[in-house]
Amino acid sequence: MKTHIEFTHSPIVPPRMEIGAKEIGAQVEFLGIVRELEDVQAIAGLHYEAHEPMARSTIEKIFSELAVLYPCEEVRLIHRLDFVPVGETALYIRVRSRHRRSALRMTDAAVDQIKADAPIRELT
Amino acid sequence: MKTHIEFTHSPIVPPRMEIGAKEIGAQVEFLGIVRELEDVQAIAGLHYEAHEPMARSTIEKIFSELAVLYPCEEVRLIHRLDFVPVGETALYIRVRSRHRRSALRMTDAAVDQIKADAPIRELT
Repeated sequence: MKTHIEFTHSPIVPPRMEIGAKEIGAQVEFLGIVRELEDVQAIAGLHYEAHEPMARSTIEKIFSELAVLYPCEEVRLIHRLDFVPVGETALYIRVRSRHRRSALRMTDAAVDQIKADAPIRELT
Repeated sequence: MKTHIEFTHSPIVPPRMEIGAKEIGAQVEFLGIVRELEDVQAIAGLHYEAHEPMARSTIEKIFSELAVLYPCEEVRLIHRLDFVPVGETALYIRVRSRHRRSALRMTDAAVDQIKADAPIRELT
């Protein structure tokens, strides 16, 4: 599985779709977008801080462990750091696989585990 | 939930992302891509045939039933019909929701149910 993990301090630009891999049957793109919180004071955005080398190795481990359950050909993740305004993307994940179930389940499980385990702090 | 279902006889162009809905926290895009089949003769592509009005109402029903479990703000589906070459997208789904779990689970369940129940035939 090709894994590409990136942190950026600028708005996330979804990478161009590569065309033509004959074995790819499914592609999932997930955007985690900062939204106005409910039941609290409206916010302008969220701040994200990460220990980048630790976050990268935690995320790599999460993907490689999940690939045993959900085999995929390629995962690509971009996490934006610093201030992310409401309506903009903080987390981008793209998964490409032979079979649709793998790509969908990989994305779902990866987002859960990254939120739980990666050393990335979300601050209002 | 805004639902937009479309059939096309041309290559699918993913709709432009709308920006700025303050309540949207997650967007999932799923592409179902025609791939070369394994263990059988290589194919150039697949043919899809649909009874469009029936397929549309089946898909609308699937989305509205799933929205009880997985509340979403917007779903958009494009299914390509006729011949779809290997490497090109036959099915496009975009789901936008407040919470990431809803968007991911909606996509996963909708693809399963559409494959099972919608009157769309896939022919080699």
